[in-house]
Amino acid sequence: MAQPHVQSTTQSVSFFHVQQAATRIAPYVHRTPVLTCQTIDEMVGGSVFFKCENFQKSGAFKFRGAVNAILQLTPEELSRGVVTHSSGNHAGALASAAQIFGTQAFIVMPSNSSEIKMAAVRSYGGQITECAPTLEARLSVADQVQKKTGSVLIPPFDHPHIIAGQGTAAMELLEQVPDLDAIIAPVGGGGLMSGTCIAARAFNPEMLVWGGEPVGADDAFQSKLAGKFIPQLSPNTISDGLRTSLGALTWPFIRDQVDEILTANDDETVVAMKMFWERTKVIIEPSSAVPLAAILKRYSRQSTSHPANSVQPGKIGVVLSGGNVDLMNLPWNQ
Amino acid sequence: MAQPHVQSTTQSVSFFHVQQAATRIAPYVHRTPVLTCQTIDEMVGGSVFFKCENFQKSGAFKFRGAVNAILQLTPEELSRGVVTHSSGNHAGALASAAQIFGTQAFIVMPSNSSEIKMAAVRSYGGQITECAPTLEARLSVADQVQKKTGSVLIPPFDHPHIIAGQGTAAMELLEQVPDLDAIIAPVGGGGLMSGTCIAARAFNPEMLVWGGEPVGADDAFQSKLAGKFIPQLSPNTISDGLRTSLGALTWPFIRDQVDEILTANDDETVVAMKMFWERTKVIIEPSSAVPLAAILKRYSRQSTSHPANSVQPGKIGVVLSGGNVDLMNLPWNQ
Repeated sequence: MAQPHVQSTTQSVSFFHVQQAATRIAPYVHRTPVLTCQTIDEMVGGSVFFKCENFQKSGAFKFRGAVNAILQLTPEELSRGVVTHSSGNHAGALASAAQIFGTQAFIVMPSNSSEIKMAAVRSYGGQITECAPTLEARLSVADQVQKKTGSVLIPPFDHPHIIAGQGTAAMELLEQVPDLDAIIAPVGGGGLMSGTCIAARAFNPEMLVWGGEPVGADDAFQSKLAGKFIPQLSPNTISDGLRTSLGALTWPFIRDQVDEILTANDDETVVAMKMFWERTKVIIEPSSAVPLAAILKRYSRQSTSHPANSVQPGKIGVVLSGGNVDLMNLPWNQ
Repeated sequence: MAQPHVQSTTQSVSFFHVQQAATRIAPYVHRTPVLTCQTIDEMVGGSVFFKCENFQKSGAFKFRGAVNAILQLTPEELSRGVVTHSSGNHAGALASAAQIFGTQAFIVMPSNSSEIKMAAVRSYGGQITECAPTLEARLSVADQVQKKTGSVLIPPFDHPHIIAGQGTAAMELLEQVPDLDAIIAPVGGGGLMSGTCIAARAFNPEMLVWGGEPVGADDAFQSKLAGKFIPQLSPNTISDGLRTSLGALTWPFIRDQVDEILTANDDETVVAMKMFWERTKVIIEPSSAVPLAAILKRYSRQSTSHPANSVQPGKIGVVLSGGNVDLMNLPWNQ
């Protein structure tokens, strides 16, 4: 997973797989609500519909993919436990899903992971192995744990079952608000974004599909610009869920099916996040505030970067990816 | 309003008035959702249903009473503007309601009011007059502003139209979850609590009706204990919405229709508030966390104050009064 292989198509996962995933995971996941906010609509000059995956079990959309992957293990595989490496929401989601299905989750977490996310994994019964905070260490320690325990690797994003599971969030949003003109999701490893592409294109091939990315980890933006995959070497952003490079399966979706990557810097993200908390009384994590910040940057009436020829789509859907924040260390208090 | 007059009954407002208020304000208020949380249910050993008035316009239930009061002014009265004194949510709610109905709100606010609540009033076009932070100063400055402007006083809680408006929150909750065994609301001036009594008793006279109060401002608890009204002289609590004394109209409801006042100290309230944010991703202010803290204190499995003979009611409704907090000054960071 360190470097994507060459992969030329987006045929790895189809809308059929997303539909199957939706049926498969339905008994276990929340059908999360869609939230609107008059103040934000006025700022943007349109209608924004927020799909609240921060209310999903384990506090993030990651639960969808984890459940979809676990439900496709054989009983024998399931009995051996599951393993992954993650500093964040995939760790908590997989631990939570494993607990529900009565198996053990082994989670390799970088030693600089936030205490609150490690506590979440432990609260779901996950067994943590710490490693050095590098991708190499994560991969090699995960490999060691997998060999030692015999457990099954459930990767964080670059797997068809994960992508299909994450696509159910956008599919639900489009069932709840069928006539969206545009949809945006944050881009980290690209699992959520790929699933969002699949669902959006199936509902309406004309829909604008955007990714939201922090300036400090804009590998999707740079890769699309260059027309080839450019890995994220030294990410620098508070959006801890979006520091990862794209994968071999996800990059083709971003390349071929995302109309545009909109970016926001961390200051803009923090302003958007705080405004969202104040106005909606709903907690989102920095990664979830990136798409909102990017939309505000482009379309808000105060915006100076609003392109003269840019017409605001009437109805924009935003996938709020998660709400797991350390309340003792909020970004506006730092 | 400084000292309640003797008033022996709760006949001032009936369920008929609450029903009328609900119809009157329906076009202007949000029908707020009811939230549940599996973790909290497990902690309590029952089912807890949270009525999210933190999602109400202006961020608090206070908007209901303010709209109900304004809608009963004559056109001539409305044209003169409205005036009140409040350090908190009634100020923002009245300013917001006044803006909707095209009149001017004059708000007398103690000079130690939180900057965020003053900013909210200004954002709704309210005109603030600061006063010394004493009840005497608030009353006398409000009187001066009223005389000078000719505006109509809309008191924060001790008025039949306010009580009837606030009662619509519990009425809605009981429409959404009809078979509650118990209901609890926070007690400050008692407007919300009185309205909650009226709605609950109308739906089910056998329902347990509780008030939630901070130990540092427990005038309702002390008054019920003494069997006579004891004013709150020097409140000391972080729950800024609950520092007020009961009023002449509200005290009889608390005395005659509330089964019990449950209390929590500020430490317990902060723990409950932070846990609620973490688990539900929904922002509530300290005043809203008091009833939750009081329930957890009594019924959680870890509780040591759980009376041996106290049977947990199966379904408990909790009115979450508001979500207006200063994100730069959260109580767990102090």
